[in-house]
Amino acid sequence: MKYLLTLSYCGKNYSGWQVQSNAPTVQAAVCAAAQTLFGCDCAVSGCSRTDAGVHAVRYYATVDVPLPTNIPTDAIAVAMCDLLPEDISVMSARTCDESFNARYDAVKKTYEYHIYNSEQRNPFLSGLAWHYRRPLDEKLMDCAAKHFIGEKDFSAFCASGTKVKSKVRCIYSSGVIREGDTVIFRISGNGFLYNMVRIITGTLVSISEGKTDIDDIDRIIESRDRLLAGATAPPDGLYLCEVEYS
Amino acid sequence: MKYLLTLSYCGKNYSGWQVQSNAPTVQAAVCAAAQTLFGCDCAVSGCSRTDAGVHAVRYYATVDVPLPTNIPTDAIAVAMCDLLPEDISVMSARTCDESFNARYDAVKKTYEYHIYNSEQRNPFLSGLAWHYRRPLDEKLMDCAAKHFIGEKDFSAFCASGTKVKSKVRCIYSSGVIREGDTVIFRISGNGFLYNMVRIITGTLVSISEGKTDIDDIDRIIESRDRLLAGATAPPDGLYLCEVEYS
Repeated sequence: MKYLLTLSYCGKNYSGWQVQSNAPTVQAAVCAAAQTLFGCDCAVSGCSRTDAGVHAVRYYATVDVPLPTNIPTDAIAVAMCDLLPEDISVMSARTCDESFNARYDAVKKTYEYHIYNSEQRNPFLSGLAWHYRRPLDEKLMDCAAKHFIGEKDFSAFCASGTKVKSKVRCIYSSGVIREGDTVIFRISGNGFLYNMVRIITGTLVSISEGKTDIDDIDRIIESRDRLLAGATAPPDGLYLCEVEYS
Repeated sequence: MKYLLTLSYCGKNYSGWQVQSNAPTVQAAVCAAAQTLFGCDCAVSGCSRTDAGVHAVRYYATVDVPLPTNIPTDAIAVAMCDLLPEDISVMSARTCDESFNARYDAVKKTYEYHIYNSEQRNPFLSGLAWHYRRPLDEKLMDCAAKHFIGEKDFSAFCASGTKVKSKVRCIYSSGVIREGDTVIFRISGNGFLYNMVRIITGTLVSISEGKTDIDDIDRIIESRDRLLAGATAPPDGLYLCEVEYS
């Protein structure tokens, strides 16, 4: 039986989603909980390889249970939660098609990047936002964010060394708002390159600081040159918010 | 020179405020930072001995620097922040009277207790709120909270074994509100007994659950019997919010 889990996790204490030999990961924690619950090794596949320190408000993963089970499907979420650390939650579980792939069947992903923009540090946001002391111009950043909408080759906004066939992605929406001391960049698209949201965030901050001109964005995108875009923002502020399937 | 620091800290990773020989504490972290900054041992005294896992939105501590220093007072807060872990913040620093005592000169303290009241766990609130699954009646809890206002002997709401001369305290305000899925109990008084806010919180939850009758509160207070009050709520949800001096 194959199940689709909706997860939510705080990535602060994890070296990302994907299993690693010597570091705690979210996938390893979910695998261990599934093994205990179902009494056998289960293949767990996630919708995205979130990096170390990155969070997920909503994340989808499939669990392949090779043996028959008499656990009612509607009891799985609570049972998994009881077996998982407090910073990982299973919101729901349902059966799915054997052919369903949480990563490759996704048609739309939405990310948020949170910048805590205050002279003073907020100890409750440690690991949960990028602390940026100098005032940011969220209106200018919002105008700049709009330039990323559309189908484009985002090579300039991809970590170097990434091997993917095509670096063309379609961005459906992209904007920046301020909620009190927190500046939030929200972006949706049909897919994202490695570090893409963090590099765009670094570029938006560079624009707010006057180091990059807003009129240069289109030229930077066209250049496909990573060196022309801004620095990669730290992982702390990045949240995978939603993944949609067809 | 004696300085008064305004701190804010997330208590999740600390065994409370007060220095302990074998566990990390907030006081030990502040002492170490002060020693590095001023280049000598400094006596650090806090306004309250918060328990393991308890947080402070605003906390006051004095730092006694025995040697002359040429560090400008308005540079101390940022310098201390740079030396402290990210979950402890120094908001401000100013000089104060040698005679000032952050603990005994306090005339009013305000605490909040946060209960995350949802069937589903929130991984971002791990250690930051008490997760309570069954629905709570915040209006009934608010009515019950009002019974604690006034000058009373709160022996029934004090952890057993506490040695203080008098268990009479004056509560100025006490109430419960709901903000989305979070139920917040806020209480101000001239002082609080050991575990008092957590035991009152446990009692308010017991009232919402129908295990304790709201009309019994006055009788429980008058009884001075700890066994008649509710269970002690976990430390995770407790925040010291403000301390006032005359």
